Amino acid sequence: MATHTQMTAAVHGYVAAFSAGDAEAVVALFSADATVEDPIGSEIIRGQDAIREFYQRSMATGAKLVLDLPIRAHADHAAFAFHVDLILQGSHMRIDVIDIFRFDSGGKVTSMKAFWGPENMTTLAD
Amino acid sequence: MATHTQMTAAVHGYVAAFSAGDAEAVVALFSADATVEDPIGSEIIRGQDAIREFYQRSMATGAKLVLDLPIRAHADHAAFAFHVDLILQGSHMRIDVIDIFRFDSGGKVTSMKAFWGPENMTTLAD
Repeated sequence: MATHTQMTAAVHGYVAAFSAGDAEAVVALFSADATVEDPIGSEIIRGQDAIREFYQRSMATGAKLVLDLPIRAHADHAAFAFHVDLILQGSHMRIDVIDIFRFDSGGKVTSMKAFWGPENMTTLAD
Repeated sequence: MATHTQMTAAVHGYVAAFSAGDAEAVVALFSADATVEDPIGSEIIRGQDAIREFYQRSMATGAKLVLDLPIRAHADHAAFAFHVDLILQGSHMRIDVIDIFRFDSGGKVTSMKAFWGPENMTTLAD
């Protein structure tokens, strides 16, 4: 079973690597056959190559992730609330998201689900 | 598919009913064969009778729920971060939780998973 320390370190590593635009560091957190469903209800991406491509595309916006609350980590799962801070077509946007990571016994992420929808996107006045 | 309005109303109804100690109003939000896994990794409870018993027991502590961030609701799922405010053996406690609800097409909750662990329990100085 993944330890609490492994799970919280993975979440902090994910947030930092995403914000730094380091897709390889993000991919390294996932197991070989991991899945990503972002947002929930969309087509499920499987495997590190597809995951790398997904994150490279996501990071191309220059988006930064900011944790909003303490990480919940227990029994091979971590749940964390954060917001995405990005400039989209000249507008400063915020997207409020909750991610669920499931871990294997080695502490790698085997599944990621991101919960957010259009109602969680806000345009900020600069 | 459950609508955004149905899902957010269910979450607000859940928080209000729990805090009011109204187990019947909570049970009414769930489908007949719904499951509850609280906390994640524990034995899964199935069906309205078992769910009623679970909530009656949880509410016996006098715990209140407080939403901490905007609800994320999309594609038959709602994710929400909240904290539980309770007095446990004379100590004022806070538990930080993220719940995931999955909905059926009629807007009833078919599955609830609660993400929290011992590290999310804090004793507050009064």
